[in-house]
Amino acid sequence: MIGLMQSQQLLISSLMDFAERHHGDAEIVSRRVEGDIHRTNYRQIAARSKQVAHGLDHMGLGFGDRVATLAWNGYRHLELYFGVSGSGRVLHTLNPRLHPEQIVWIANHAQDQVLCFDMSFLPIVQAVHANCSTIKHYVALCDANKLPTDTGIPGLQSYEAWIGAHSTDYHWPEFDEDSASSMCYTSGTTGNPKGVLYSHRSTLLHAFAGALPDALNISARDCILPVVPMFHVNAWGLPYCAAMTGCKLVFPGPSMDGKSIFELMESEGVNFAAGVPTVWQMLLGYLQSNQRRFSTLKRTVIGGAACPPAMMQSFQVDYGVEVLHAWGMTEMSPLGTVCTLKNKHAKLDAAQQMQVRLKQGRGIFGVDMKIVDDNRAELPWDGKTSGDLLVKGPWVVSEYFGSDGASPLVDGWFPTGDVATIDADGYMQITDRSKDVIKSGGEWISSIDVENIAMAHPGVAMAACIGMKHPKWDERPIIVVVTKPGVTLTRDEVLAFFVGKTAKWQVPDDVVFVDAIPLGGTGKMQKSKLRDMLRDYRLPGA
Amino acid sequence: MIGLMQSQQLLISSLMDFAERHHGDAEIVSRRVEGDIHRTNYRQIAARSKQVAHGLDHMGLGFGDRVATLAWNGYRHLELYFGVSGSGRVLHTLNPRLHPEQIVWIANHAQDQVLCFDMSFLPIVQAVHANCSTIKHYVALCDANKLPTDTGIPGLQSYEAWIGAHSTDYHWPEFDEDSASSMCYTSGTTGNPKGVLYSHRSTLLHAFAGALPDALNISARDCILPVVPMFHVNAWGLPYCAAMTGCKLVFPGPSMDGKSIFELMESEGVNFAAGVPTVWQMLLGYLQSNQRRFSTLKRTVIGGAACPPAMMQSFQVDYGVEVLHAWGMTEMSPLGTVCTLKNKHAKLDAAQQMQVRLKQGRGIFGVDMKIVDDNRAELPWDGKTSGDLLVKGPWVVSEYFGSDGASPLVDGWFPTGDVATIDADGYMQITDRSKDVIKSGGEWISSIDVENIAMAHPGVAMAACIGMKHPKWDERPIIVVVTKPGVTLTRDEVLAFFVGKTAKWQVPDDVVFVDAIPLGGTGKMQKSKLRDMLRDYRLPGA
Repeated sequence: MIGLMQSQQLLISSLMDFAERHHGDAEIVSRRVEGDIHRTNYRQIAARSKQVAHGLDHMGLGFGDRVATLAWNGYRHLELYFGVSGSGRVLHTLNPRLHPEQIVWIANHAQDQVLCFDMSFLPIVQAVHANCSTIKHYVALCDANKLPTDTGIPGLQSYEAWIGAHSTDYHWPEFDEDSASSMCYTSGTTGNPKGVLYSHRSTLLHAFAGALPDALNISARDCILPVVPMFHVNAWGLPYCAAMTGCKLVFPGPSMDGKSIFELMESEGVNFAAGVPTVWQMLLGYLQSNQRRFSTLKRTVIGGAACPPAMMQSFQVDYGVEVLHAWGMTEMSPLGTVCTLKNKHAKLDAAQQMQVRLKQGRGIFGVDMKIVDDNRAELPWDGKTSGDLLVKGPWVVSEYFGSDGASPLVDGWFPTGDVATIDADGYMQITDRSKDVIKSGGEWISSIDVENIAMAHPGVAMAACIGMKHPKWDERPIIVVVTKPGVTLTRDEVLAFFVGKTAKWQVPDDVVFVDAIPLGGTGKMQKSKLRDMLRDYRLPGA
Repeated sequence: MIGLMQSQQLLISSLMDFAERHHGDAEIVSRRVEGDIHRTNYRQIAARSKQVAHGLDHMGLGFGDRVATLAWNGYRHLELYFGVSGSGRVLHTLNPRLHPEQIVWIANHAQDQVLCFDMSFLPIVQAVHANCSTIKHYVALCDANKLPTDTGIPGLQSYEAWIGAHSTDYHWPEFDEDSASSMCYTSGTTGNPKGVLYSHRSTLLHAFAGALPDALNISARDCILPVVPMFHVNAWGLPYCAAMTGCKLVFPGPSMDGKSIFELMESEGVNFAAGVPTVWQMLLGYLQSNQRRFSTLKRTVIGGAACPPAMMQSFQVDYGVEVLHAWGMTEMSPLGTVCTLKNKHAKLDAAQQMQVRLKQGRGIFGVDMKIVDDNRAELPWDGKTSGDLLVKGPWVVSEYFGSDGASPLVDGWFPTGDVATIDADGYMQITDRSKDVIKSGGEWISSIDVENIAMAHPGVAMAACIGMKHPKWDERPIIVVVTKPGVTLTRDEVLAFFVGKTAKWQVPDDVVFVDAIPLGGTGKMQKSKLRDMLRDYRLPGA
C-alpha cells in the first residue's frame, strides 16, 4: 500500500525558491577578487541564478551537461551553484590548486562544456584552454568593463554581460531527484583523479542531515563563513544548508590569511566558520601575534584532516570558541561524522568532554559505518580495536564517473581508506590513513598520534610523521618538523618531548627539519610528496 | 544523467537501526498505566520492536495491513511505532478520547486487523469490539499476569506474552519508501473522520525538517517529554525525531495533570517538552499554586491551538522557558511552521522579539504556503492582508484514505481551513479557523483575538469566543468564560477589560459564564459543541 502524501522531488532549485521566498533579505557578503566587499541577499541571488539558467539555455546546453567553475567562495559562485544545478545541468567545481595538467585531464574526463572562472585564475585558463577539447564557452566572473581584450581565450565573455542579457524570471524545471546535480574530483594522491557525481536527492538529504543540531547546527540565526572552498566538496555542503535555513553567508574570496579572515569575521558578526586545520593555524597565529580576540565567533567546524589537540585546546580554552571535529570525504558529500556531545556527557567536566571532542565524532543519521579486519569481519566498537573504516548511505558514492560501472564498494560498503576505532558510544577516531600507518615489528603506529605530540611542542609549526624502511622492524617512524619563525630546535629536544607521552617503541627514530611540508590542493599535508622529498634519506643505523 | 550515489530507501526501520547502533544506552523513561516509572533504552526498544515484527508475521499480517493502537505515551507504544511500520505494516493510532461510535467507524473504515491497547482503555475496547468487524487480534499492553480472564474480548492476549514468544533478531524488510507507514484520522468536527495515510518517505523527511534548529531543534543532548499524545499525529513526529537523534525520551503515560508532569520533568532532567495550550495551562496553574519553578526545562513547543499571549509571557518572563509557537495539521504530519527568530531579530529587545514569537511562525524547509482570496488569487505577504491558507510539500496529504481518488487539493495545494496573514519575513499568523471567523456587518472579527484578550484577565481560566446570529449585523461575538477556582467575575468586569485593547465593534456583546468549555480528543476547544450548548441562548437586544 502506497502512502497518500504529496509527491514532490527533492531538487536543489527548491532550496533557492525557499530562501528567496522566506529569507529574501538575508545577507550574502563577499570579499571579491576585485578586493572590495560586496553585499547582496537571497532574493537577488535567486534572480541572478535564474539569469544563469537562461544563459545556459541560450548556450544550448542540454540536461546533464557539465558546467565547470574555477572560483573562490563568493556570490557569483553561489549563483552558479543554483543556476547550473537548478536548471538541470551539472556543476563541476574544478580545484584551481591542482596542476594545470591535472585540470586539463579532469575537464576533459568530465566533458565540461562551459568554464566560469575568477579573474585571478586567468593564467590557469590561458595555460589549459587549448587542451580542454570539450569546453565551448568561457565566462570570466567579472563586470563587462573588467574583461581584458587580449586573453587569447576564444569567445571569452564577462559573467555580468552574459547573465545581464537575460530575464530574472525563470521556471525551474521539475525532474527525477536522482538526476546528477554536481561533481567533484578527488585530488587523487595515487592514480588518476576520480569523479564523484552527486544527485539532487543526495544533496538535499545531506543538507538536511548537515544542518541538524548534532551536525553543523545551522539556523536562520547564524552568520556563517565557509573558509573551506566551494571547489572542495561543495564547501562541505554549506551553500545548500545556507539556502535551506536562510542564514547569513560571508564569503572570504581569495583572502585566506589570518588577518583578512579575522577582520571579515569581526565586521560581519560571523558566529560560525568552517575550514581545514592549516587555515585555522594561520588564523590562530594572527590572533596570538596581534593580541586579538573574537567578539562574535562561537563555533568552528574543523575537518579535512584531524585537528591537532593543541589547536582545539587553544580555540576552546584561550578563545572560548567551540570546536566541532568533523570527518568526511569527497565520496561522502562529504559529511560522515561530527563530534557533538550526548546527553550523558553533560555530567562530565571540561577535560573529560575534551577527550570526547578530540575524536572525529559520531555518525550523523543517514551514514552507517563499520570497521573491519583484513578478512572483512566486523570489529567491535570498543574504542581500542582499529580496522578499515567502511561507510554507506544515501550520500555516499556508488561508483565513480566514467568508470564503466566498476564498483568501488565492498559488499555494498564504501572503503574509506582510513583506519579507525569506534567506541561504545559510536564515536569514531581516525588512527591513520591506511597508507600512512607505520608497520613496525608487527605492530601498527599511528602517524597521527605521533604528529599530535610533536604539534603540541610550543616551537613546532607543523609536523608530519612518515614510515621509513628498516631492515629489522620493517618500518620505523620519523618526524618531519617545521619550526615556528625565529625558533631553533634540535633533534634531541624534539625527541625528548616524546618521553612519557607515548610508548617508547612509538617514539620516532629521527627528526628531519624542513622549511615547509608540501600541502595539497585542499590544505592537507601531502605525505607522498614528502616521501619523494626524502627519497635519499636513510634512518640512523639502518 | 543520473547521479552516482548509493540508492537507499528512506525507511522508518533505519531510524531504529541508527538509534540502536549509535545511541543504544540512551534512556526511554515512562510513567506507566500501572503507576510506576519504567526505564529502558533504545537498544532494548529495538530488540522488542523486532519481537513485535515477528509477532505480526506470526499473526499472518500482510504488507500494508493496519495495526491499531489505543494507548498513552509509553515505551510499548514506541515499540509498536517501530515494529509495526518497520515490518511493513501500517500503524493506526486511534484516539481514545473519541466517542466509542466514532472509534468503531474509524476502525472499520481503516480495516484494522489488530488492536493493541493500554489496560486503562479496556472499557472502550469492551464497548466497541463486537462492532469492529475487521479486527482479528486483541493485545493488551500489559504483563501476562495482569491480564484479566473475563474481559469478554475474544482471544485477548497480553503484549508481553505475545512478543515474549519471539526472537529479538529480525531483518527489517526493504521496500519502496513511498509505502504507507502509519495513519491518523482527523477528529472531524463536521462530516465523517478522514484518514491521513503517511509514508515512510514523508515520515523521514518530516523528521529531518522537524529536528532542524529552525524547527524543534532536537539533538542527542536533549531530554524530551512529549505531552502531546502519540495518538495525535504521531506526537508531532517526536518519536521519529528522537530515534533520528538518540535523545533521551520521557513519556508521561496517562498522568497529564500539572503535578505529575512537573515531577517527571524535574526527576528526569527534561529540557524540552511539547504539548497543546490546555495542558500547559494546567502545568502553569500547578506551578503558580505551589510556588514551584522549573530547574531543567529550557524550551517548550506549543501547538495544536494558538498559544494565548499571556501563557507565552508567563513561560518566558516568569519561568525563563523559551516558547516555540508551532502550527500544523494532521494532514501535514503535522509540522508546517515553527516560530523561531532570524539573524536580523538579534538586535530587537525582548518586547519586540515577543511580537515576533506570538505569530505561528515561519514555514520550515519543505513546506510551502500561500494565502489566497475568494478567487484563489495569491495575497501579499504584508502581515495585514488575511486570506485562506494553502500549503504543499512532501509531508502534506494528497488524498484521504478510502476516498476513491477524490482530491482535497486546489491546484495542487491543500486548503488548511485556516485564515491567516503572512508578513514580509514569512511569519504566518492564524487569524481564525475559516468556520470560526465572526462576520459582523461585512467586517471579520477574529475569535482568537477576542479570546486572547479575555485569557489575559487574571481571573479567567479559559475563554471561547463564538459568533451569534444578529438581525442587524449578521453575527456578533460573545465570550464564554470559565473563571479560575474561587474567583467571581461579573459580565461588566469582563467587558470592561476589553476597553482600550481592541476596536469597540470587536468587543463581545455579551459574556456567558460556564463551568467548563468542551474540549476535543486533542485538547482543543470544541466550538461546535459549545454552539450546541448555547442553542437556546439569545443575544441581548436581538
